[in-house]
Amino acid sequence: MDGCSLIFEPSGQRYTGAAGATVLEMARDCGVNLTTACGGHETCGKCRVRVMPAGGPLVMNAATAAELRVLGAVGLTEHWRLACCVHIQGQAVIEVPRFSQDGEPVILAEGQRHAAALRPWIQFYMVTMTPPTLQDHRSDFRRLQDSLRETYPAIFRTPPGIAYEVLQLLPGSLRQSGWQVLAGVAGGAKIVSIKPAGEPLHCYGVSVDMGTTTLAAGLTDLVTGKQLAAAACVNHQVRFGDDVITRISYAVQQPDGLRQLQEAVVADCNALLDELVQKAGIQNGDLYEIVLAGNTVMKQLFFGIMPDWIGKSPFVAAIQDAVIMPAARCGIQIAPAGRLYFLPGEAGFVGSDNVAVLLAGESYKQEKMTLTVDIGTNGEIDFGNRQEMFSASCATGPALEGAQLRFGMRAASGAVAHVQINPVTLRASCSVIGGGPACGICGSGIVDAVAELVRTGVVQVSGAFNKLSGHPLVRRREGKKKIWEYVLVPSALSGIGQDITITQQDIRAVQLAKAALWAGAALLVEKSGGRPIERVVLAGAFGSYIDRHNALAIGLLPDCDEDCIAVVGNAAGEGARLVLIDQGKRREAAVLAPWVKFVEAAAEKSFQRYFLQGMEFRRLALTETRDDRGRDLDRNTEKTFA
Amino acid sequence: MDGCSLIFEPSGQRYTGAAGATVLEMARDCGVNLTTACGGHETCGKCRVRVMPAGGPLVMNAATAAELRVLGAVGLTEHWRLACCVHIQGQAVIEVPRFSQDGEPVILAEGQRHAAALRPWIQFYMVTMTPPTLQDHRSDFRRLQDSLRETYPAIFRTPPGIAYEVLQLLPGSLRQSGWQVLAGVAGGAKIVSIKPAGEPLHCYGVSVDMGTTTLAAGLTDLVTGKQLAAAACVNHQVRFGDDVITRISYAVQQPDGLRQLQEAVVADCNALLDELVQKAGIQNGDLYEIVLAGNTVMKQLFFGIMPDWIGKSPFVAAIQDAVIMPAARCGIQIAPAGRLYFLPGEAGFVGSDNVAVLLAGESYKQEKMTLTVDIGTNGEIDFGNRQEMFSASCATGPALEGAQLRFGMRAASGAVAHVQINPVTLRASCSVIGGGPACGICGSGIVDAVAELVRTGVVQVSGAFNKLSGHPLVRRREGKKKIWEYVLVPSALSGIGQDITITQQDIRAVQLAKAALWAGAALLVEKSGGRPIERVVLAGAFGSYIDRHNALAIGLLPDCDEDCIAVVGNAAGEGARLVLIDQGKRREAAVLAPWVKFVEAAAEKSFQRYFLQGMEFRRLALTETRDDRGRDLDRNTEKTFA
Repeated sequence: MDGCSLIFEPSGQRYTGAAGATVLEMARDCGVNLTTACGGHETCGKCRVRVMPAGGPLVMNAATAAELRVLGAVGLTEHWRLACCVHIQGQAVIEVPRFSQDGEPVILAEGQRHAAALRPWIQFYMVTMTPPTLQDHRSDFRRLQDSLRETYPAIFRTPPGIAYEVLQLLPGSLRQSGWQVLAGVAGGAKIVSIKPAGEPLHCYGVSVDMGTTTLAAGLTDLVTGKQLAAAACVNHQVRFGDDVITRISYAVQQPDGLRQLQEAVVADCNALLDELVQKAGIQNGDLYEIVLAGNTVMKQLFFGIMPDWIGKSPFVAAIQDAVIMPAARCGIQIAPAGRLYFLPGEAGFVGSDNVAVLLAGESYKQEKMTLTVDIGTNGEIDFGNRQEMFSASCATGPALEGAQLRFGMRAASGAVAHVQINPVTLRASCSVIGGGPACGICGSGIVDAVAELVRTGVVQVSGAFNKLSGHPLVRRREGKKKIWEYVLVPSALSGIGQDITITQQDIRAVQLAKAALWAGAALLVEKSGGRPIERVVLAGAFGSYIDRHNALAIGLLPDCDEDCIAVVGNAAGEGARLVLIDQGKRREAAVLAPWVKFVEAAAEKSFQRYFLQGMEFRRLALTETRDDRGRDLDRNTEKTFA
Repeated sequence: MDGCSLIFEPSGQRYTGAAGATVLEMARDCGVNLTTACGGHETCGKCRVRVMPAGGPLVMNAATAAELRVLGAVGLTEHWRLACCVHIQGQAVIEVPRFSQDGEPVILAEGQRHAAALRPWIQFYMVTMTPPTLQDHRSDFRRLQDSLRETYPAIFRTPPGIAYEVLQLLPGSLRQSGWQVLAGVAGGAKIVSIKPAGEPLHCYGVSVDMGTTTLAAGLTDLVTGKQLAAAACVNHQVRFGDDVITRISYAVQQPDGLRQLQEAVVADCNALLDELVQKAGIQNGDLYEIVLAGNTVMKQLFFGIMPDWIGKSPFVAAIQDAVIMPAARCGIQIAPAGRLYFLPGEAGFVGSDNVAVLLAGESYKQEKMTLTVDIGTNGEIDFGNRQEMFSASCATGPALEGAQLRFGMRAASGAVAHVQINPVTLRASCSVIGGGPACGICGSGIVDAVAELVRTGVVQVSGAFNKLSGHPLVRRREGKKKIWEYVLVPSALSGIGQDITITQQDIRAVQLAKAALWAGAALLVEKSGGRPIERVVLAGAFGSYIDRHNALAIGLLPDCDEDCIAVVGNAAGEGARLVLIDQGKRREAAVLAPWVKFVEAAAEKSFQRYFLQGMEFRRLALTETRDDRGRDLDRNTEKTFA
């Protein structure tokens, strides 16, 4: 119990590492921005949080004088603390209220979290039946149906069906509970659980954001709507390829490839379920639903549908509608009659993860023209408002998720999340997740690093290293490939016994990724008739960590006012969670998915031009690509060839 | 190829045995009544049948002069023959037209068979799609849905769903067939098959009558509506008990009993499927639906639902509604997305087999007050007409199906099916199914035998043997149990190397069974307010063989005009077949099942009295049970005890 394991709610971000620091410092370490006017000196009282036990051991220091003053005795009994005053050993959930969250209000904020109604797909209804007699010999199922309809006539206008597994146990279930039960009904149409009426009701669901590189899952209590646990893991399909195109090839070309890919991701899901169940201390059999969001290829691979044709022009998916089925049918281990819901997608590679991102942000309900950028191995971009919305997909590769870099890693303990480089010494000052020595660099770290390398002149705007030979931190690597690299963390300070460097290849990977994103954004703005971007929502696994200033500085996004940018973290996961707790969101998704106008970048002539423009590491305004500028370019071309 | 294997259509009855006899004789042997005015002497020309190849070898004699005269050359080329003239070796299907069927028009007659519309649950629709382009990037599934809705707007008012197994293969299916396919849709709502449009369409279904002792199945071409093959087998649940009550005990008391029972009957179904598929020369994967009918206990055991409470008062079933699910879910091996439909039942033990019997006979649509008696291990009785109908169940035991008798067997090759006893010598003259030496006695045989034994004075009206010691054929058995028995077939003539006898125990088993049936009928007539029986429909596995005269003579049925009795054979199987080919019958079944007024015999005071009255082996008129007679009996009792 020397260490400390914190989950920050509502964002679900986690700190795991050594104890000792204050919760405020741990929060910073894992990217949770808490308000502090005093800089953490126990004076302003703004960093209020609630420290809740997480099931495991939990030890903390007694309240300080500052806390007593700011929070009062009542506040302290209600678990309120000041983050800058409290030191924790063991496990805790840190509830961050909205007023303690720093900066731009984010979509994952508590207020917005609870905006969704608690109307899960599976709901329990209490019914009392009269026991059968020789005169009333209705079957058990009919008796239950009749009771449901008599007790809840507005809900059960037609008699509900019943899942096979529940029917098999029905006679015993009804009698053992004395004809008074809680009937769990999915979508008001199918009985999926029978529980005795007297006992506390356990009904949970899991939402999963199925990324190409990372799976992130949350466990929600469907009775209270509260998220109880979160977990993430690598998508083990990476064994068969880092990006969707490689995996498609694997599925198509290897005799047993598709099955291997399917089994890998299903096993990942089941491992996440186990982890969540254990963390929350609940039973697997009380999980009644799993909601999944993922891009089109992830969806096809999850369902074992050959992805051959989604991989080649005209890039057609097998199914874009929501898929609803018994979870057991695809090997997902929840309650025997538990359900699976995979969100609907749009078209091409723009899948249900993008629909989930839109559901979380609701830009389709607003007047402001919003650019939503979901950064992942497969980047997805939307632009529009309640009148009209366009979407496109761009293959960014996994660099922005911290994968495929020489020292890349995902945003976990040991990852360099933020970087500042001294312009004189060129020495980097890194903030590492978990506070320990650095083991690698994650997505937000590489964005910072590239921005700082360009700012300090180590790397040119074109992306090439300035050949500063002689400088100890900028060097040509020894060995076969004599490429240039920058030493971010020297081996003496790193946790891996060697220098952590950023290579010319890493820079190029980031360059291609950010050019793809920028070009996608430019294309959608063009499609909208060149309307100005009024708001930017930046989503993605590493979204919560990204430095907006640096993102603009390297031209990851079209240049805009920094304050327009909302960094929302894993919005796809949040969208999936909303769908889990509010079945109304399913209807919304069903309408939304086909309404968004999908733009196939490959079919657009202008995309390639935007892509080339997007390559430079500098603030890149969209005005340069507007029609006038476009005509200018064309005129230039004409002049050249005239 | 020395033997001969015939299937008589439309009844589905089968002859398997030695070749040599004429088809007329074989027909008689297996209980198919063909019209013959001349007694089979090749003169009347009434026994016309069509001899069709059944897939295996087939050799027959050339047409006789009589056939040429009666049928003409054209008739002969169309496979017409006279049953009394044709000798067959090998396999054939004998189509018996209605005009060649003898006696009371039976429900299984061809005319009534084809009365059902050909509207199977699964229907194929041809659609042609435009291939996708970069401009038309609808998903494969959406494209298919849209085409179905555009081509068949009246049928697909809402977009159909798709079975998981079909979705998994959809992209390949559509492209390999050049975007022109036959889509198999279940109930207009779910796509369960995709086939290339150019190839011949194979789509078959199987109907199963799941009896306590015997399973009977038929394979039907769902494109033509034609029955292609039939098969039957013992319900291997008999290993765990002969009747439903014993099996319930087994399921409840043995740790793994329920699973064993379920697996036994599912294995039987799969074996029947294999046999049918092989006989018809089709692919198992082209079977798209299985329709099942069976009593309430059979249904619960098939679905693995603990039958504890159906076995004790108030005898409540877990489910009486129709069960519709993917066949694979309960281990039935047909097409991957093939469907299973188990008919709805009524109440108590009166299950879906009774609903099937009613569907086949349609007594609920007629004005005549009809008594329908389905004889099986569990007897089910209905009485009523289109205004009102009552049903009851009576535990007859398996004696009338030929089981549980000392030398009992089911109506298969080697079974004594009909018996006459010489009143002087007491020697029996037996007709044996298949024509070979007798191996045992089946249900119709025991009914004949008992009637003859009573007629010749060997057995008393009370059921006791007259102790004719000294007669070589009526004797007290040696060994421990010195019970009386009658030698039906002496060992010298039998095929089993020992005497085939009918024991006092056998007589008692028949007596209990027929008393239960008679009492059930009497009870339902009482419930109807004592309305006269205008028609009797006698169904059941051995129905086709039963001698109506003898059935009345031993008081198996309430006494009535012999001509009122229609013997319809396996009507439950026929009802299931009708449901298979006409989905409209499902709606009819859903309305019918709860409409029939179930009478719980155990709860009726008068039942026990009727049961005692029904014990005597003589014609037993219902008038004796009417209220006046009932009062007489009571007065008599009073007198005795006064």
